Amino acid sequence: MGEFELLALVRERLPEPGPRVKIGSGDDAAVTVPGGATATSVDAVIEGVHFERGRASLRQIGGKALATGLSDLAAMGAEPGEAYVVLGLPPELAEEGCLELLDGILAQAAAAETTIAGGDLVRSPALSIAVTVVGHAPAPEGFVSRSGARPGDVLLLSGELGGAAAGLIALERREEMAAIPAATADELLRRQLEPVPRLAAGRALAAAGATAMIDISDGLGGDARHLARSSGVGLRIEAAALPLAAGVPEAAAIAGRGPLELATSGGEDYELLASIPAEGLDVERLARQAGVPLTRIGEVVAGSGVVIRLPDGRALDPGGYDQLD
Amino acid sequence: MGEFELLALVRERLPEPGPRVKIGSGDDAAVTVPGGATATSVDAVIEGVHFERGRASLRQIGGKALATGLSDLAAMGAEPGEAYVVLGLPPELAEEGCLELLDGILAQAAAAETTIAGGDLVRSPALSIAVTVVGHAPAPEGFVSRSGARPGDVLLLSGELGGAAAGLIALERREEMAAIPAATADELLRRQLEPVPRLAAGRALAAAGATAMIDISDGLGGDARHLARSSGVGLRIEAAALPLAAGVPEAAAIAGRGPLELATSGGEDYELLASIPAEGLDVERLARQAGVPLTRIGEVVAGSGVVIRLPDGRALDPGGYDQLD
Repeated sequence: MGEFELLALVRERLPEPGPRVKIGSGDDAAVTVPGGATATSVDAVIEGVHFERGRASLRQIGGKALATGLSDLAAMGAEPGEAYVVLGLPPELAEEGCLELLDGILAQAAAAETTIAGGDLVRSPALSIAVTVVGHAPAPEGFVSRSGARPGDVLLLSGELGGAAAGLIALERREEMAAIPAATADELLRRQLEPVPRLAAGRALAAAGATAMIDISDGLGGDARHLARSSGVGLRIEAAALPLAAGVPEAAAIAGRGPLELATSGGEDYELLASIPAEGLDVERLARQAGVPLTRIGEVVAGSGVVIRLPDGRALDPGGYDQLD
Repeated sequence: MGEFELLALVRERLPEPGPRVKIGSGDDAAVTVPGGATATSVDAVIEGVHFERGRASLRQIGGKALATGLSDLAAMGAEPGEAYVVLGLPPELAEEGCLELLDGILAQAAAAETTIAGGDLVRSPALSIAVTVVGHAPAPEGFVSRSGARPGDVLLLSGELGGAAAGLIALERREEMAAIPAATADELLRRQLEPVPRLAAGRALAAAGATAMIDISDGLGGDARHLARSSGVGLRIEAAALPLAAGVPEAAAIAGRGPLELATSGGEDYELLASIPAEGLDVERLARQAGVPLTRIGEVVAGSGVVIRLPDGRALDPGGYDQLD
């Protein structure tokens, strides 16, 4: 099957574009009418580096590639808009494989109210997915950067930590997971294979006055450090306050790691960490708007660096990795 | 060297962003203030599929990857804006290699008044470059799609044809190119390795009322067919009018191909094909605004399909390929 036939099959599957899109897939470029300001992020995942085809379905691989891009828009507090996808297809991946990948991307796009406005198909030795996402706001000030945290601000975290890392352990050492109830293990696998971008939470936090925000893709420790450095502040996080996903202690034990260490350095949770002024803050009300639990996990302090304080007063190494991923 | 150190080196090399960019590389997403409408295009090139590292320098590979994306914006008549680049880096490519690639991208960006507003570095088994380009116009109607050509419109072509295909022959069969003057052979190599996106020509053609436009990446024959199909018209092209680059007949002879066939099916010239109403058209004046020669090569007719008429009245197969590239 040639490029244009496969592209035609792909285009048949695309739903009607959203109202911002004036020319969708099929011209030299997509034409959109953006909001007063746009947030744009690019990412790529490559077989053998970011995923293995045996471990996840093509549908999950496609959906996760888009979800991780959309998570960056969530961290800006953006209104979701458009996505553009370049699929690098190895020769042995048949037409059905390409369409299964696409179905995963389209399901994630629909869930996030995002239009796939363009893309391309290219040959590649390894399966790869490059994703560009564009979100909108009425003005640049409507977005939340990493750099506005101020001493005294409260640190809020969406959802739970460690689930994705525990899910990876469950994938790698399935036979040892018998100690964990099946429903819990399934949920950990979902956290690893089908992450959900916190778009509504990002918009709710932005509307409530968040001063800085980042998504937890590299682990809480590493991403907290990025936020602290960008804002020129320090962060003090209380380990006892961190919400760990069910099954994390058991999965950590199987891997010979501490549950807190796994939860703060494991990565891929795609939760949001935000700083927000303490005055007038109603966390429960904000969590209802966000559609996901929000937990107060610490505060912004003068200085620099990130400290995760254990209940006995000692500090945990905040972790995070500094390698190409 | 870790990801963040290399990213820091990359960011040091980025010039000041353009006025539309409010937050550049380094946050979860780049923030821009777009025009009233944007045109967005995505592309990827992969080692062993689209380029070979031995044949072109890393600087040329990087520059060409961005240039081919910008060529899509030229074909929309867009004002250039931002580009986002994801580099897939194989383990053996050292830091200097990455920075040489980046220098080629930055030189092309500067020449095209484009800001590199974001990107990412990932590990990859094969060197790959995924490029997203965003151009601007005051309103969606300011862009020129492929679908507005009307019977009676004149077909204009920028620059010359066949140079890139002849340059590929020169790369593959260098020792046989002695019949071609060295300066001509060098120019053919430049056409293959260092294409120039026709951004100013695209804007001039859009401002002059072009009804449809496409860039010649797959060969004149194939791309003319795309334009004809999108517009629901036929195109009649006069072979005798086609401007062939110097050295094309000699290179075609070396490859055992006809010069016209090479020029119309060879691809990668990245010239523009535009339809424009005949009334009041002053091609010479428009060419001065475009900054590149413009040639009247035929006309839009009722019906469908593309015919390239030879001087003796026969028709040339318009060529063009339909495979994943």
